Amino acid sequence: MDQVNLKRLAKELNLAVSTVSRALSDSHDISEETKKKVLALARKLNYQPNPFARSLRNRSSKTIAVILPEIANNYFSVAINGIEEVAQANNYHVLIYITHESFQKEAAIVRLLLNGRVDGILMSLSGGAKDTDHLAELQKSNIPVVFFDRVSDTFDTIRVTTNNFESGYLATTHLISRNCQRIAYLTFSGDLSIEQQRMKGYLEAVQKHGLSTAEDLIVRCDTNAEESYKKIKEMLSRDDRPDGVFASVESLAIYVYEACAELRLRIPEDVKIIGFSNLRTASLLNPALTTITQPAFNMGREAARVLFEVLKKPHVRMEDNTIVLRSNLVERRSTAIT
Amino acid sequence: MDQVNLKRLAKELNLAVSTVSRALSDSHDISEETKKKVLALARKLNYQPNPFARSLRNRSSKTIAVILPEIANNYFSVAINGIEEVAQANNYHVLIYITHESFQKEAAIVRLLLNGRVDGILMSLSGGAKDTDHLAELQKSNIPVVFFDRVSDTFDTIRVTTNNFESGYLATTHLISRNCQRIAYLTFSGDLSIEQQRMKGYLEAVQKHGLSTAEDLIVRCDTNAEESYKKIKEMLSRDDRPDGVFASVESLAIYVYEACAELRLRIPEDVKIIGFSNLRTASLLNPALTTITQPAFNMGREAARVLFEVLKKPHVRMEDNTIVLRSNLVERRSTAIT
Repeated sequence: MDQVNLKRLAKELNLAVSTVSRALSDSHDISEETKKKVLALARKLNYQPNPFARSLRNRSSKTIAVILPEIANNYFSVAINGIEEVAQANNYHVLIYITHESFQKEAAIVRLLLNGRVDGILMSLSGGAKDTDHLAELQKSNIPVVFFDRVSDTFDTIRVTTNNFESGYLATTHLISRNCQRIAYLTFSGDLSIEQQRMKGYLEAVQKHGLSTAEDLIVRCDTNAEESYKKIKEMLSRDDRPDGVFASVESLAIYVYEACAELRLRIPEDVKIIGFSNLRTASLLNPALTTITQPAFNMGREAARVLFEVLKKPHVRMEDNTIVLRSNLVERRSTAIT
Repeated sequence: MDQVNLKRLAKELNLAVSTVSRALSDSHDISEETKKKVLALARKLNYQPNPFARSLRNRSSKTIAVILPEIANNYFSVAINGIEEVAQANNYHVLIYITHESFQKEAAIVRLLLNGRVDGILMSLSGGAKDTDHLAELQKSNIPVVFFDRVSDTFDTIRVTTNNFESGYLATTHLISRNCQRIAYLTFSGDLSIEQQRMKGYLEAVQKHGLSTAEDLIVRCDTNAEESYKKIKEMLSRDDRPDGVFASVESLAIYVYEACAELRLRIPEDVKIIGFSNLRTASLLNPALTTITQPAFNMGREAARVLFEVLKKPHVRMEDNTIVLRSNLVERRSTAIT
C-alpha cells in the first residue's frame, strides 16, 4: 500500500472515507478531536490530496483559462503578468490558450472548456471572431467569462477595456496638430469592437478638421505578415502618400518603420507615425515612437480581480458591465514638427 | 436528471457504468454492437466526459506545466509559441507559472505539481536557483522534467539549450574585431549554468587577445531594474569606462541604450554594444542593435517534442541528454567601426 490517499487514512484511523474527507476540509459537522487525529496522520504520512479527486468532489477545478489571440506581443505578455498575480494570490492555476487570430481555433478551445476543466475564463477575442455561439454555450454551462482588451459588445458579461474611441480621436488630433493633412489609418480586419471604436475616433477627428477620409487612406491588414507589409509599403509608395500614419495595432507601426527604411522615407520629416503600443523599447527606436500606451498590467489584473469576485459569488447573476481603464498618449520624436 | 454522465448513459442503456466507460474508450473487450449503441446515445444526449473523472481513471491529466522566470520577455514569449504548437498537436493543455526569478516561488510551484495535476513539466530555471531538492521530488514522483534555455547541470534529465559558450566567445571576438580594448560583461547573478557558459566564452576571448579582465568590467545586475540601471550607468560614467559592452541578457542591453542617452555617449562611436536578444525591433533601434539571437521558437518546440516523446514511453528511463540549437550573430550598427 504505497499510495497515501483518503482510503488509506480512513483505514488506518478506522473512520469512513467521507469523515476523513470532511475532517480535512474543516467541515463543521466533524468533531475537533477527530479533525486533529486526521490532520496529524495526514501530516505524518505526507498526504497530498489528488487534485482531480478534489475537483470532482468540490466541482471546482481551482483553474482559470486565459484565451489570447497571441502571446509574443507586448500588450498580452504584460497583461498575463497582471492576471497571474491575482491568480497566485487566489491559489489558482492558469491555463493558457493561443488562438493565433483564428476564429475556428477560438471556438474549438472554448468547447474544450465546457466540461468543467476550468472555473472561469478570461478572454480577448481573435481578430476573425464571427459569432458568439461558442460563448453562449459557456453561459449555458455556467462558466463565467470576463473579456479584456478585445471585448464582445453583443455578449452580456463584464468587459475590461480602454477608452478606445477617445484614444483614436486623441491620436488623430495629435497628428493634425503636427500639421499632417493626409492621415492614414492602419487596422486589422476591422471586425472587432475595439477596432471599430478606434476607427470611429479617427474618422471623427479627421472629419471635424475637414481632412480627407478617402477610402484608400484606410489600410486593412491581416495576420499574414508579408501581405500586411506589402499593403503598407504600397500605400507609402504612392504619389499621394499620407504625411501621417496612425497604426491602431502595434505590429503595424513596426511595418511602417521597416517600409519607410526600405523606401528611404524619413520619419518624422516625410511621414509622422503614432501607434497603439506597449513596446518596451518605443523610446529607443529610430526615431522614438509616439504611442498610445494601454495600462496592460492593470487591465489583466482588473479582469482577473473581477473574475474571482464572480467566482466567489456563484449564485449572483453576472451583470453586464464595462470597466474602462484609460490609455495615455506619450509624445516622442516620430511625430515631431520638423 | 439534468446532468449527462456515465451513470445516466448506463441507466438508459441498462448497462454497467464500467461497460459504458470501456465502450467510450473503444476497449477491445466490448462488442462492436454495444459500442455503437453507447456512442449513439452519447452523441444524442451531447455527453461531455468530465476531465477530472477521466484523469482519475487514466492517471493522466492531459496537461503539462511550463515554468518560466518571466513572460514579458521576447525570448520566452516566442518560446511559448513553440511549446503551444506541440501541445495543441498532442491535444494537451498548458498551465503557465511565472517565478519572477524567485527561487522560493519556483520551489513552491514545483511542490504544487507533485500530486498529479500535470503529466510533465517544461522548465527554465529562476535566476536565484540555489539547489535542486524540489526537482528531486519531481523525479521521485515520476513526473518528467525537460529544461530549456536556463538548464540545470546537476540534475539528470533532458536539456534543450543553445551554444552559450561559443556565442559568448563569438560576441566578444566580434567586439575585439571592431577595435574594442576594454570590454565590459553584463550578467544577472551569474549563478545559472548558461550565464557561466556565456561568461567563460567572454573571458576566454578577452584573455586570448591579451585584453583586460579587470573585475570592475564585470557587472552583476539583478531583477531590481533601478539597481541594475544604476550599476550600468555608474560603469559608463567612469573615466576608464569600457569602449565595448556585451550584455548577456536582453534587458541589460536596453539599460545600456538608456544610460548612454542620459550620459550623452554615442553608440557606436563612444561605446559599441552587442546583446543576447530576441527583440523584434532590434533592427529599428537607434542605432540598430547587434545581437546574438537564440532560436526561441525552435527551442520551445524541441523541448515540448522531447517531453511528449518521454510521455509516450512512460516505462523507458529518461536519459541525461543535452540538445543544442545554435544561436546566430546578427551584425548591426551598434558595433560598426566609425
